[in-house]
Amino acid sequence: MAKTWKTEPTESLRATEQTALGSIDTSSTPGFDGDKKYGQQVLESGAARLSELQEKLFADSRAAGGTRSVLLVLQAMDTAGKGGIVRHVVGAVDPQGIHHHAFKAPTEEELAHDFLWRVRRELPGAGMIGVFDRSHYEDVLVAKVRSLVSDDTIESRYAEIADFEEELTASGTVIVKVMLHISFDEQKARLAERLDRPDKHWKYSTGDIDERNLWSDYQKAYETAIQRTSTDAAPWYVVPADRKWYARVAVQRLLIDALEKLDLGWPPADFNVETEKIRLAAS
Amino acid sequence: MAKTWKTEPTESLRATEQTALGSIDTSSTPGFDGDKKYGQQVLESGAARLSELQEKLFADSRAAGGTRSVLLVLQAMDTAGKGGIVRHVVGAVDPQGIHHHAFKAPTEEELAHDFLWRVRRELPGAGMIGVFDRSHYEDVLVAKVRSLVSDDTIESRYAEIADFEEELTASGTVIVKVMLHISFDEQKARLAERLDRPDKHWKYSTGDIDERNLWSDYQKAYETAIQRTSTDAAPWYVVPADRKWYARVAVQRLLIDALEKLDLGWPPADFNVETEKIRLAAS
Repeated sequence: MAKTWKTEPTESLRATEQTALGSIDTSSTPGFDGDKKYGQQVLESGAARLSELQEKLFADSRAAGGTRSVLLVLQAMDTAGKGGIVRHVVGAVDPQGIHHHAFKAPTEEELAHDFLWRVRRELPGAGMIGVFDRSHYEDVLVAKVRSLVSDDTIESRYAEIADFEEELTASGTVIVKVMLHISFDEQKARLAERLDRPDKHWKYSTGDIDERNLWSDYQKAYETAIQRTSTDAAPWYVVPADRKWYARVAVQRLLIDALEKLDLGWPPADFNVETEKIRLAAS
Repeated sequence: MAKTWKTEPTESLRATEQTALGSIDTSSTPGFDGDKKYGQQVLESGAARLSELQEKLFADSRAAGGTRSVLLVLQAMDTAGKGGIVRHVVGAVDPQGIHHHAFKAPTEEELAHDFLWRVRRELPGAGMIGVFDRSHYEDVLVAKVRSLVSDDTIESRYAEIADFEEELTASGTVIVKVMLHISFDEQKARLAERLDRPDKHWKYSTGDIDERNLWSDYQKAYETAIQRTSTDAAPWYVVPADRKWYARVAVQRLLIDALEKLDLGWPPADFNVETEKIRLAAS
């Protein structure tokens, strides 16, 4: 695996206060030394590695009182491939270790609470990999573009989010925030495909074009949100996503890296193995 | 696929009021015309079919207001392979369409409520496949074997469960109840493996032998529960599980069958496709 990446995604895709989305080539494959076919092979072999790491995370919480968890936050414009990441990257690991939640437009009840209320309710428990398909970032993205709240509120939310994520990290959750970055043209092609294929119609909504017509406003909102909330505790990664295979292999690598850094082994037995063998033999 | 099964699992594994667990060969492969190698091939090809059916179920709820869902209830003695079913059968479909819940010994809060309270909170929403790793059946299994409640309470629970499941079915949930049935000897071999392998120690608990020593009480409790709650609305299937490959391919087939009976197509567009193509072109 090591040779596959000339530069690790944790470095090459890491967003900073200076990140300019417009200067990132959405069809590029930063750091990856290979073509689509090789990328798919890497995805396949990485699945086994990710799966083993997930099981160790899970085991650690169940048998060793471990409190660590991982949270993958997926944000993107429509059609950028969030669903494909869930299916092809997250889908490789044991479903019992995954807590997936898709955030929709907030309900009345959710709106009656602080914007982080509904997010806290869906955080991964110990040993789990949480996956947010959209997240609290919608509250500084669509909320900003559609002027759902005041500019002052948006401003204060950046700070609240940074505090919230720092608190999460301190309590043992490793946060991996991913923006899947596609081009305006690529979105057009993908929406056209959804309109062409009856088995994809259910994924299409007339609102998709309304949002698309606000593309540059959304890009600006994403850029500001990323600049303001890409912290050491919870960095953003901007993943070029015009090539689906690249986005998948890059996000898989980010997850593997996050889990490897936890450096978890198999929990030691909390019982006397020889005694239990004798008990079993006698049973 | 049709030729793979001489007799469909929905027929050959269906439990009735007369089901006697002791007379079922746990190493048999009822209805399946093939060996382990072929079984693994069938599991692989079935994964694509299951995945497509799950997507249609999900799409139906999202785009056509569908209210259908599926609930897989997994019950078994320790080591029988519930986890393997989740990983290898359920794990083949999109994680965003799965709601998995493992029921542990009830908490104080849960005990303060009716035994179905915590179960209702984990039911799959529209379009979802719910997976219960253990379930409300523990309340007539361990509760009976360990005399946690009176015999009268156990009796009334059978009826409450039947009513509850009938209500669920009427509201659109297809319930598939599976008991993975292993032999006493097979459990011994599997526990021995857990004790031999440090990477499996986390799955072992000293309580496993305590439960094992109550084997025949548990078999009786299972048998009675199955006889009393295998209804047309929510039938039980007793799946011989000494051969893991068979149990997996059989449960996969039961799920495929449940989904096929819903006879779902792709939801029709709720928008004018041509109009949207024009809007997209102009965007």
